[in-house]
Amino acid sequence: MNEARWLTDEQQRAWRKLAGVITVLPTALDAQLQRDASVTHFGYWVMALLSESADLSARMSDLAAKANASPSRLSHVVSRLEKNGWVHRRKSPEDGRGSIAVLTEAGQAKVVASAPGHVAKVRELLFDGLDDDQVRQLDEICAVLLRQMGYHAETAMPMRRQDSSQAGG
Amino acid sequence: MNEARWLTDEQQRAWRKLAGVITVLPTALDAQLQRDASVTHFGYWVMALLSESADLSARMSDLAAKANASPSRLSHVVSRLEKNGWVHRRKSPEDGRGSIAVLTEAGQAKVVASAPGHVAKVRELLFDGLDDDQVRQLDEICAVLLRQMGYHAETAMPMRRQDSSQAGG
Repeated sequence: MNEARWLTDEQQRAWRKLAGVITVLPTALDAQLQRDASVTHFGYWVMALLSESADLSARMSDLAAKANASPSRLSHVVSRLEKNGWVHRRKSPEDGRGSIAVLTEAGQAKVVASAPGHVAKVRELLFDGLDDDQVRQLDEICAVLLRQMGYHAETAMPMRRQDSSQAGG
Repeated sequence: MNEARWLTDEQQRAWRKLAGVITVLPTALDAQLQRDASVTHFGYWVMALLSESADLSARMSDLAAKANASPSRLSHVVSRLEKNGWVHRRKSPEDGRGSIAVLTEAGQAKVVASAPGHVAKVRELLFDGLDDDQVRQLDEICAVLLRQMGYHAETAMPMRRQDSSQAGG
């Protein structure tokens, strides 16, 4: 067996905790949204991204990139959102290739109704115990991790009033 | 609609990145382990926890707590590990209730063989770009998050030589 470069004790402790967070946090977020809004966290995220987009619509390939998802995962989730009447898919008018996802009125209403409860949960699970320095540190650390995993550090997850003027930022 | 306490801009930026990390990181870890070792990250984690335990075994309920998993999720994963001959389940001799998971010789060999490649991936995805301060910050932040989600901050994910003397630490 080749000599591996093992983690330092400090790295190991941090990694064990982060591995715990990535195991537990998605489940906690899904549980709240499923119970209160009958939608998964990822489904909510996709709708929230559309709610920020011009004309409440986005090319599926762009949406996949923004949501850090593979095309097949996104397609699977959008199919479920379509069954609920929250999203509608249509062919791209420009080139006929690929398709465009559009947030329906019902989907918009779902995002607006779900946002306050969801943001309260995110505050409770994440931000209530973090001071301003830690929020900044978390931002910088996650930016490094996303870059190392080959993703844009600026993902999109709207967490404020849906009628605010910013889009995608 | 009640007035929600929305996130600050700084919190929102950090949350979008963390949401990206929890979407992408499990997939990246699974991909490496599935390709190189035919095991999921969670399956590897469960076997690694057993490899650190006295007699290479643990009560299923204790294992679920250590792995931050629900009993049903753990049971599902252990069933798959059993099919591969890596873990074996037996009744508890003490009280006849519940069961005990034991790492088999093949399971032990699987952990030892998989660890170097996995730790290399964890370094590449996580630690190569983080300095010592950031590793400490990540540890402290994740400890806060785990406590807020009702979990012990000290989870276990062995990331060093399997023959080292520490157990569970």
